[in-house]
Amino acid sequence: MVDDIINVRLGDDGMSVVILDQTALPNETNYIKLNSAEALFEAIYALRVRGAPAIGIFAAYALYVLACQIKTENYEDFCAEVFKHSAYLDSSRPTAVNLGAQLRRMEKLVKSQTGIKIPQILEAMKEEADRIYHEDVDMCRTISEYGLSLIHDGYGIMTQCNAGPLATSKYGTALGPILLGHERGMKLSAFICETRPLLQGARLTAYELYRAGVDCTLICDNMASIVMSEGKINAVFAGCDRIAGNGDAANKIGTSGLAILAKHYDIPFYVFGPSTTIDMGCATGTDIEIELREPAEIKEMFFEKPMAPENVKCYNPSFDVTHNSLISAIVTDKGICKAPYDESLKIFKIFG
Amino acid sequence: MVDDIINVRLGDDGMSVVILDQTALPNETNYIKLNSAEALFEAIYALRVRGAPAIGIFAAYALYVLACQIKTENYEDFCAEVFKHSAYLDSSRPTAVNLGAQLRRMEKLVKSQTGIKIPQILEAMKEEADRIYHEDVDMCRTISEYGLSLIHDGYGIMTQCNAGPLATSKYGTALGPILLGHERGMKLSAFICETRPLLQGARLTAYELYRAGVDCTLICDNMASIVMSEGKINAVFAGCDRIAGNGDAANKIGTSGLAILAKHYDIPFYVFGPSTTIDMGCATGTDIEIELREPAEIKEMFFEKPMAPENVKCYNPSFDVTHNSLISAIVTDKGICKAPYDESLKIFKIFG
Repeated sequence: MVDDIINVRLGDDGMSVVILDQTALPNETNYIKLNSAEALFEAIYALRVRGAPAIGIFAAYALYVLACQIKTENYEDFCAEVFKHSAYLDSSRPTAVNLGAQLRRMEKLVKSQTGIKIPQILEAMKEEADRIYHEDVDMCRTISEYGLSLIHDGYGIMTQCNAGPLATSKYGTALGPILLGHERGMKLSAFICETRPLLQGARLTAYELYRAGVDCTLICDNMASIVMSEGKINAVFAGCDRIAGNGDAANKIGTSGLAILAKHYDIPFYVFGPSTTIDMGCATGTDIEIELREPAEIKEMFFEKPMAPENVKCYNPSFDVTHNSLISAIVTDKGICKAPYDESLKIFKIFG
Repeated sequence: MVDDIINVRLGDDGMSVVILDQTALPNETNYIKLNSAEALFEAIYALRVRGAPAIGIFAAYALYVLACQIKTENYEDFCAEVFKHSAYLDSSRPTAVNLGAQLRRMEKLVKSQTGIKIPQILEAMKEEADRIYHEDVDMCRTISEYGLSLIHDGYGIMTQCNAGPLATSKYGTALGPILLGHERGMKLSAFICETRPLLQGARLTAYELYRAGVDCTLICDNMASIVMSEGKINAVFAGCDRIAGNGDAANKIGTSGLAILAKHYDIPFYVFGPSTTIDMGCATGTDIEIELREPAEIKEMFFEKPMAPENVKCYNPSFDVTHNSLISAIVTDKGICKAPYDESLKIFKIFG
């Protein structure tokens, strides 16, 4: 039941990327076909494709599709064009580490192909993008299994934003244990924070969990405290877009607030992400650049009418950083990582 | 500059209540005239008039307007009808103490008028409602002055929902110190949480502060943590709908979460309300009934299209209770009350 959402794939023509446009959900299921650099960039920026792993897969296919359009037989010129496209795609969203990481991986492949003819390099790029996709499927499955070891029958789990199949390639990361546990007959209940301003919780996570038949309840973000106070929550599950070397985790705006509430109510707070999300180049969370987005997202988007005075200032950070001291464990495809994170994450990166 | 919002008044015909319909703000400024019991009830239920003090004033005028329509010259029959209307209005919103308190006050007046002719009783009711209004103006001014003693030039203040002129009769309660300080030339900045689901922060508080020329910034509710973490906030100001005898405070949903965040970031958290909001009949916050509202408010209201899967469950509590241990002080018209609240509130109620 989680198999039928394919949010990113190579088009049947082999020259485009097809995505399920997440901005139209849950009202419309629109698959759109993209092949220009601008359209591919816009799909990431406008969150038509979103979720750290899905963005990584999309970027790999996007770079392949753009590489197919390069009109040269000269290897150096080809490389220069590929790197230009890669840098452009990379600039679409600054916080997610997977975007840059998968683009670097594709660049590295291209760099290694000296002396190889362009059509063969393109074939290798396609295979690499496919590999990134299949690795993600395996990775999600592994994270889900690890996550499942943290919960029990009857658990109430709070989550926000979307770290499910739409954000990844199959089970998702933070949603994975819930979907996998449900498949295996566990009775779980999920409380979904709607996740303003773009409502990924209401539009995407509720869509996935409701379709899958999981007992789920949608709340506004400011209702998390009362729900926790009523004893309905046994664990909070969050995805992540980048994890610093000390365990500080950047994720969708609101995550750090949930972590603080969870600590106050003595509820474990778990962060889920592929080990590729760990960025040892970032010593702490303060090194993570936080994307700021447009006021219109807060005041106008989705609303029938502007819902605030026309010229009033808005502050619209898309992510926040959760301090490592608030995180009970970081669940990755390499295993479950606990404090002190500066040590455990390093071991994961070296030996994981 | 805070004088021109009159949100509740007796109609010029003396037979209706005129309100500024707060559900249409900030896009439209609609004054509506109400005189049937059903329309008056609906105005409270649908939050056309809202804010604990404003609801109290509205209820007093509403009961007067309904009393004018009673067709009897018999005092006992008149009383019975008045009490029936009062109970009906009182059932429109369970959490706000002022609604019931001002209705009780009007009932008490009517009960005291044995032997008096109905037209004179009606005149006394009108005077009592006017008195409730004027007392509220004075009360807001006093609360604002007390609140002002807690802040300094350059302060950043976070607030949510609406405890400003629209919720009261003039300066408001939690917004009062900001408006009064601004009038006196203090440089203050306000961060306004939008307050889902009904966006009272975005639609009403931003409207009031922006009009008044206060430096204000609108954020989504889940951005409170990042804003506090960035050192922009020196105090959090919240209104309240009911204060239990031990200092637990019921206020708009999300307040308890802000209080927990404020404690985490070591920021003082102040609750503002008239002393009538203190309900010694409620020993603790667990005795306060929390109003649950319709899922449509979360999924549909204000949105162009339904923003969640059609049949997904929603939980929509309208208030939450902030534990007294998270409250730095309760600012009332009788003075600033500090912990231990079971003692200080009792003294306020007896000698205040």
